[in-house]
Amino acid sequence: MQIVTPYLLFLGDVPDALAAKTALGIVDWRPEWCIGQLRLPGCKADAGVPDLGIAEAKAAGVRTMIVGAVNAGGVLPDHWIASIVEALEAGLDVASGLHTKLGDIPAIREAAERNGATLFDVRHSSERFPTGKGTKRSGKRLLTVGTDCSVGKKYTALALEAAMREAGFSADFRATGQTGVFISGRGVAIDAVVADFISGAVEWLSPAADADHWDLVEGQGSLFHPSFAGVSLGLLHGAQPDAFVVCHEPTRTRMRGVQHPLPSIEDVIDLTVRCGSLTNPDIRCVGIAINTAALDDAAATALLAETAGRLSLPAVDPIRTGVAPIVAEIGRVFGKAG
Amino acid sequence: MQIVTPYLLFLGDVPDALAAKTALGIVDWRPEWCIGQLRLPGCKADAGVPDLGIAEAKAAGVRTMIVGAVNAGGVLPDHWIASIVEALEAGLDVASGLHTKLGDIPAIREAAERNGATLFDVRHSSERFPTGKGTKRSGKRLLTVGTDCSVGKKYTALALEAAMREAGFSADFRATGQTGVFISGRGVAIDAVVADFISGAVEWLSPAADADHWDLVEGQGSLFHPSFAGVSLGLLHGAQPDAFVVCHEPTRTRMRGVQHPLPSIEDVIDLTVRCGSLTNPDIRCVGIAINTAALDDAAATALLAETAGRLSLPAVDPIRTGVAPIVAEIGRVFGKAG
Repeated sequence: MQIVTPYLLFLGDVPDALAAKTALGIVDWRPEWCIGQLRLPGCKADAGVPDLGIAEAKAAGVRTMIVGAVNAGGVLPDHWIASIVEALEAGLDVASGLHTKLGDIPAIREAAERNGATLFDVRHSSERFPTGKGTKRSGKRLLTVGTDCSVGKKYTALALEAAMREAGFSADFRATGQTGVFISGRGVAIDAVVADFISGAVEWLSPAADADHWDLVEGQGSLFHPSFAGVSLGLLHGAQPDAFVVCHEPTRTRMRGVQHPLPSIEDVIDLTVRCGSLTNPDIRCVGIAINTAALDDAAATALLAETAGRLSLPAVDPIRTGVAPIVAEIGRVFGKAG
Repeated sequence: MQIVTPYLLFLGDVPDALAAKTALGIVDWRPEWCIGQLRLPGCKADAGVPDLGIAEAKAAGVRTMIVGAVNAGGVLPDHWIASIVEALEAGLDVASGLHTKLGDIPAIREAAERNGATLFDVRHSSERFPTGKGTKRSGKRLLTVGTDCSVGKKYTALALEAAMREAGFSADFRATGQTGVFISGRGVAIDAVVADFISGAVEWLSPAADADHWDLVEGQGSLFHPSFAGVSLGLLHGAQPDAFVVCHEPTRTRMRGVQHPLPSIEDVIDLTVRCGSLTNPDIRCVGIAINTAALDDAAATALLAETAGRLSLPAVDPIRTGVAPIVAEIGRVFGKAG
């Protein structure tokens, strides 16, 4: 699955920016792919790119319209269908992260067939994966793991991709969630894969590569999250990472959606090494990424310094401080770029 | 999902007993549900129950025909379709463990609709599950775990159900694989569930119950199997077991389908306690079930005694010795029946 760029971002008529966070994430990381946005009357989100009609977008070179907004429940509202059909009639592909499958809507399916256009439902993988084998592959891999869901695993992996490339490393972000798939143009929404194939899907996503190439695999969930730990473990085994970064949000007291307290960063390092050593005996932690948005400068600086000292590892906030200390640690442990 | 009993076992024309192992497993554990078998010319398997035509089966009270045989690749051969349609026309439900969905075959789907019959594809759960919550539920649970796949987890759970009921416990087998689903008439093929819902499906499968009721949950895979550990971890978190039994096959040197060596029983106990304590802090091992089929009597007796002594836990072969020592340990730790 490869989504062809550049994109037109369809925001529908969502009531706030949060409902368009997928589109906003794409613009953050791949502004060069985002030619424009299509908004319906009443839309309260703005991706900060030109408003374009479908004909204008087509003329500007757009290849795919991304349904980069979510309605309540992930359902496709009826009044968005006409825009999607219009895009297909203009010869664009359409990619969606909604729970509703585009192809389940007859008008959309028929328009795609009529125009030879491709529909991508990134939450519903149609790829058939083999089961994981756990055999060591060439190339290097880094996985972002977490003390919880939604603690910056995607952001950290993308920040590492940018910083490692700048430092001369050969490095590719590997997406395991829907926003990540749009940002990289390919990938697997790993939580939508059938359970037997989790690790196999990750092996497919991050195949054998040159010895000095780094895949930066987007983590999901947490080994300590009672809803999603199975996904996290399959991802860990399939990614067989040489290195991992623990992502953390210091003000959170309960894990997302459940009553369980967050594990400590030490607990996450320890269990990740223990379980990850099944497919990579040399797995090691190379840094901590903390989302300090809720802290003032002094508190953030103090927390990062305390964490780094306690664990003898680089501790960064990818947004506030950047990830350079982690890239330096990767170079120190595994050898510098080039 | 509840499959209505009794059953007619459809064996098709499979070339050997192994291809009919699902049907043979049902007869082993639920002979009273198996009214007869339907075999096509050339069939080399025999479930040991009367050969019946569909009309005879219907007259004898059969409610569901079980497609209890597998073709290579789990595909439904074209020449089995007529028998399935005939069963539906006679008013039977049909349940299948094949990869091919019954409802994807137009002749079968139409026959089911025409006769108001239900099609069960146990490998393709149509049930929508919530994500797991990890909240403690009332009632007691035991999970069978393994050093590998296919080491007797289903058999051990079923043997415990029988022995605990005989000892006066309120106990129910909870199926997580296709054969188990046919044996209990309900359950979830957990490896076919979408990854995000593994633990949620197990919470649904084993709901809150009376304080002294035991659910005996069939385990899958192994926390140490690089293909399937994600399924095993989600199952562990969802089952939140009070007790677990480690199943082991002592002559196996590599994990099934991969190159990895088997973990030790001690490793499995340790990691199961560590990960299981997330949703049940009081989790403990209550015994070891070893498949000693490849050993002679003296070697089997010696291995069970050595294992029991080393781990200070009951060690049994469910087939050779029965599981009474494990039932006694459950009574000792958690209180006797009634």
